[in-house]
Amino acid sequence: MSNLVFLRIVPFIGALVALILAIIFIKIVNKKDRGNKRMQEISDAIYVGSRAYLNQQAKIMIIFFVVIEILLFIMVQFGFLQYASLLAFATGGGFSLLIGYVAMWISTRTNSRVTQAAKEKGLGEAMNIAFTAAAASGLILGVVALFDTGFWFNALFWWYGKYTTDLITNLDYVVNILVTFTIGASFAAFFMRTGGGIFTKAADMGADYVGKVESGLREDDYRNPATIADNVGDNVGDVGGMNADSLESWVGAIIATEFLGFLAFKSSPLIVNSILLPMLISTAGVFASIVAMFIIRGVVLRYKHNATVSVLTTTTMSGLLITTVLVVLFSYFIIRFVMGSGYMYIFYSSIGGLLAGFLIGVFTLIYTDAKYRPTRSISESAKSGPATLVVSGLSFGMESTVLPALTVVASMLFSFYISGGSSNLQMGLYGVSIAAVAMLSVSPYVIAIDVYGPIADNAGGIAEMAELGPEVRKTTDKLDAVGNTTAAIGKGILIGSAAITAIALGQAYFSKIGLLTENMGISVIIDFMRDPKILSGLFIGVILPFLFTSLLIGSVGRAADKVVIEARKQIKDVLSGKSKGDPRAFITIVTKAAQRGIIIPGILVFAVPVVVGILLGPGGVAALITGTLLSGFAMAIFMSNAGGALDNAKKKIEEEGGSGTPEHAASVVGDTVGDPLKDTAGPSMNILIKLISVVSIETAVLVVTMYGNLFH
Amino acid sequence: MSNLVFLRIVPFIGALVALILAIIFIKIVNKKDRGNKRMQEISDAIYVGSRAYLNQQAKIMIIFFVVIEILLFIMVQFGFLQYASLLAFATGGGFSLLIGYVAMWISTRTNSRVTQAAKEKGLGEAMNIAFTAAAASGLILGVVALFDTGFWFNALFWWYGKYTTDLITNLDYVVNILVTFTIGASFAAFFMRTGGGIFTKAADMGADYVGKVESGLREDDYRNPATIADNVGDNVGDVGGMNADSLESWVGAIIATEFLGFLAFKSSPLIVNSILLPMLISTAGVFASIVAMFIIRGVVLRYKHNATVSVLTTTTMSGLLITTVLVVLFSYFIIRFVMGSGYMYIFYSSIGGLLAGFLIGVFTLIYTDAKYRPTRSISESAKSGPATLVVSGLSFGMESTVLPALTVVASMLFSFYISGGSSNLQMGLYGVSIAAVAMLSVSPYVIAIDVYGPIADNAGGIAEMAELGPEVRKTTDKLDAVGNTTAAIGKGILIGSAAITAIALGQAYFSKIGLLTENMGISVIIDFMRDPKILSGLFIGVILPFLFTSLLIGSVGRAADKVVIEARKQIKDVLSGKSKGDPRAFITIVTKAAQRGIIIPGILVFAVPVVVGILLGPGGVAALITGTLLSGFAMAIFMSNAGGALDNAKKKIEEEGGSGTPEHAASVVGDTVGDPLKDTAGPSMNILIKLISVVSIETAVLVVTMYGNLFH
Repeated sequence: MSNLVFLRIVPFIGALVALILAIIFIKIVNKKDRGNKRMQEISDAIYVGSRAYLNQQAKIMIIFFVVIEILLFIMVQFGFLQYASLLAFATGGGFSLLIGYVAMWISTRTNSRVTQAAKEKGLGEAMNIAFTAAAASGLILGVVALFDTGFWFNALFWWYGKYTTDLITNLDYVVNILVTFTIGASFAAFFMRTGGGIFTKAADMGADYVGKVESGLREDDYRNPATIADNVGDNVGDVGGMNADSLESWVGAIIATEFLGFLAFKSSPLIVNSILLPMLISTAGVFASIVAMFIIRGVVLRYKHNATVSVLTTTTMSGLLITTVLVVLFSYFIIRFVMGSGYMYIFYSSIGGLLAGFLIGVFTLIYTDAKYRPTRSISESAKSGPATLVVSGLSFGMESTVLPALTVVASMLFSFYISGGSSNLQMGLYGVSIAAVAMLSVSPYVIAIDVYGPIADNAGGIAEMAELGPEVRKTTDKLDAVGNTTAAIGKGILIGSAAITAIALGQAYFSKIGLLTENMGISVIIDFMRDPKILSGLFIGVILPFLFTSLLIGSVGRAADKVVIEARKQIKDVLSGKSKGDPRAFITIVTKAAQRGIIIPGILVFAVPVVVGILLGPGGVAALITGTLLSGFAMAIFMSNAGGALDNAKKKIEEEGGSGTPEHAASVVGDTVGDPLKDTAGPSMNILIKLISVVSIETAVLVVTMYGNLFH
Repeated sequence: MSNLVFLRIVPFIGALVALILAIIFIKIVNKKDRGNKRMQEISDAIYVGSRAYLNQQAKIMIIFFVVIEILLFIMVQFGFLQYASLLAFATGGGFSLLIGYVAMWISTRTNSRVTQAAKEKGLGEAMNIAFTAAAASGLILGVVALFDTGFWFNALFWWYGKYTTDLITNLDYVVNILVTFTIGASFAAFFMRTGGGIFTKAADMGADYVGKVESGLREDDYRNPATIADNVGDNVGDVGGMNADSLESWVGAIIATEFLGFLAFKSSPLIVNSILLPMLISTAGVFASIVAMFIIRGVVLRYKHNATVSVLTTTTMSGLLITTVLVVLFSYFIIRFVMGSGYMYIFYSSIGGLLAGFLIGVFTLIYTDAKYRPTRSISESAKSGPATLVVSGLSFGMESTVLPALTVVASMLFSFYISGGSSNLQMGLYGVSIAAVAMLSVSPYVIAIDVYGPIADNAGGIAEMAELGPEVRKTTDKLDAVGNTTAAIGKGILIGSAAITAIALGQAYFSKIGLLTENMGISVIIDFMRDPKILSGLFIGVILPFLFTSLLIGSVGRAADKVVIEARKQIKDVLSGKSKGDPRAFITIVTKAAQRGIIIPGILVFAVPVVVGILLGPGGVAALITGTLLSGFAMAIFMSNAGGALDNAKKKIEEEGGSGTPEHAASVVGDTVGDPLKDTAGPSMNILIKLISVVSIETAVLVVTMYGNLFH
């Protein structure tokens, strides 16, 4: 057991190293010049607005969390849960909130520095600052992911070890409570991502429409007071929300793997090793990301004076390749050391996962980058007006679901069968979930190349609002272009891993149900051909992402309408010199809208699994999870890629000097339609498909008991 | 057996009566005045264009059919099928093509008569003519549905009766070959509906954009040569395609029920009765529709001089209620007489189906009619531009999937459990499929209230092109408004019944697999939690509707682009007096596009079930069917309702005198985005979800054998 003790503290070593480096990165960024007084004021206003939003969000979240804690408390009283779950749930949410705040803080403290660098020192240095700050964000993600899963595992293992000397009983408690931790993280991530998504797009759509279309102002024109809210949105949605989303995926994958490892290795001496393995692979991912970050920073610094968009894009993409190769290398030795050479199929599984993530990223790029046919074709159709352009965007978005779905299927089948799933179901499932962990272990680097997009966006906004002239804006736009490419890859990986994680979580649910019903005389058939309740569960599951999307983009639309009305009034006053405009009014409008917009989805995500469970039984819930996963995955890719391609089609027309033409106007309509799809609804699907699973796991005992009492 | 002989000829009696009445209705319509020479010329041009399109379509279809017949022939050689299947397949396609031609012929011979009536005699008489013609279309549908199912059943029963005295063996052959008949009908319907859908929307989008948006002409302005193609599109897509679609649903439901009845009553003396029952309920539906048509015609004739939109809407809707109540009444006696009082649960099942169809129709109405919140809210958001309007339309479209899905689930569970499905699976499934037949038995009336929409549309087009003045157009617009409401109900019923039919067909597939594998040592587990191949099949199934939608609306977009370019050229020439325009050029463009657009979907729909079957086994195919059903249903409702609501939002703005305002321009964009969704992709989903099932059934033996040889 002595090497086990060492293995158990490995995640903390990873977390500590990542934390130290993150602090160093932040210090490096903080030494840079923040720019002139006006730039600083604007940056401060964005920071204050972002903080105000997150505070408001935290309040609503706490109310929800208190209600859920009470429900969990009642479940504890009936013996459905342990007391430690209450704490686990709260800390799951707490870590998620923390990462949202920290990531927002880093990017709002960086934005004007990037603007200043773009102004004084050019693209290379601007890139350097943005990437360093984004890398710090990614590292903090690594810190939190490793620390919280490591801490809870060790704490619970120690705590229950005091009451039982039986390893299996001890681990049973541990993995059950870890699931509650995930649910807290998922729920918080749902608020951050969804609320942030509503905020950012309501502000963006409203500000753009009145500013650009109606008043003929440029993007982020200083005379449009709604633009501050738009820039706040980038930080709360695309930075804070994105980080919370990644954390939740990663933690979810780790804990699903631990659960499935517990089941697969129940009668093996490797049981603790199999539970530690996902944390170790994750630690390897953090170290691999660190190495890649240093290499990429070094390369970027070399190009300080002659950087171009294509050089920077190639560089950041190579970093992802380096990270991936290193994770493969590290994993080989870790798996050999921890599990022994008899279990190398786990290694192949992890390669499958990494490859799948990378491929889905590449497909995303092909469908959204202006270099490739889909986006080019969309921008072509601008010639026959906004309607054909939008239709073309929707069409390519739908087409883009095919290859990622086939990749997920192939990866799942590969991991399952290579792990011997055809003769040992649990082992096959463990292999599938390891693939998800491997895919997500590169998250710190993915965040590093993802988060600097919104930072560059903000930097551009500040350049515009501080009237630094078109040259500076051009530089930040180039930075933004690099960000778009790499963000596409990052998004692809996140969606792919969410699907695999949800499969693993669904399996964890199903295994839990199997354990629960073993002694209850209820047999659970998950056969949709033999039991119409299963088909019903699938139906409801498939519809759920449609309902959620509708609720979310409906909220964005209504809030955007309000922003439009307020912006019309204020811009008129600003242009006529009557007033300087009141950016805070917009922040208040969208904050309220975002909060209102997440209440019903937040309740539904808890209520649906319970209601379905009571009416259709645990088999119906398994079907619900599967249905949500299936259509949520398709909708996520459809909406993200349609929105991304429409956005880039517009940018392409702008780059070719088309601003002001009818084609450009058409593309602006397309971009605005795509916005809530890609930045509000699309990313929320990632969380929805996992949240439904973990809520189902959490309420499994309740559902099995109630359904059993009602119908048997 | 003597009363069985009587029962076996009942469908022919129904078909004969319906045929006589249809001829009478057509004669009544043909006596009406066709209008002045110009109107007749335009009407003739529409007829010639429609016929040319259908001829071209028939050519491509025949090529496809020959290829498939060769494949079927090969399957016969390997003992996978009987020779009679070859003929059944061909006639299935033939009947579908026939109904498309007849329906197109009726409506193109009626359109100018409606215009003339609107000009000379007002709304009431225009309505009378349009409704009578549409009723003839509906009756012809009834004739074909009853005749072809009745004929094939009797012919096969007689033919195989010569070779076997064993009833079960005889019926086994009969129902198996009937499935091949369905596949022919489905495949032809797919061509008609999808090709027609591409044609109509490409013409519409292109004509509208250049005519209305760019050149400021009115809809159907005579100076826009593309409008003839637009009016042709109404007849080939919304009339011909719609009729083929309904026929396929109806025939599919009847034959799936026969298949499931065969299995459920295998050891009961009621076996033949259970197989005849769906045809008898369908005959009841035809008679009920006839009664309702007479009543409604009577009421409409009374209102000849003082008809209003609301009176006519209420009248036609009451007709649907009358049809439904009569079917319930007839079914009660039929089931009591044919099956005996011990099987009255079949009656309750049929009530459940009828109610579900009606409810889904009502939900469709609520989400698409300008009287209710969704469409009102969409038209409100025109104030903040086309993008928010489109987003709002998409959002309500997605929301609108929820209630129909829950209705289908409730109807399925009700039919299954009331039929004793919890103790006898096959009996429960028979109950579910009877619900689908009941839902579809009202099809003749549904077609009657559905097809006069496109006729009214054509009549309005002719009024405009013949420059009859705004008053005539106003009258035809009113007729169109009545048509929109009732068409919404009809569409809802079609989608709902498609889902239930697909469930029944899926069950038929599964049952067939069960029979096939019984002796082959392959056990088929359809458990997506225990077998990743099943989850893979579901994944592919869920993605398929996204891929199809993308292919179809992509084709529309590309064709519309070509129409735009040609229209720009021609309209310029027409307005400058250089030429009178060449409408045939547009018909050629969209015909080519429509034909090209259906080739890949047509191949895929055959290839996917076979490839999935060989790689993932029969369980994977069952999952494929289910996945396609689930997401196809959701996508169908989403797209139909989003498009319908966007269309009506535009009409609302026009009615309130908003033409020419920015709000109106925004709503035109929304309408154009919605067009291919609601008229091309949406309706194709209905057919896709059933076609995948029947192709799977047809290739089941092949798949089981090949998969068995490859992997076992």
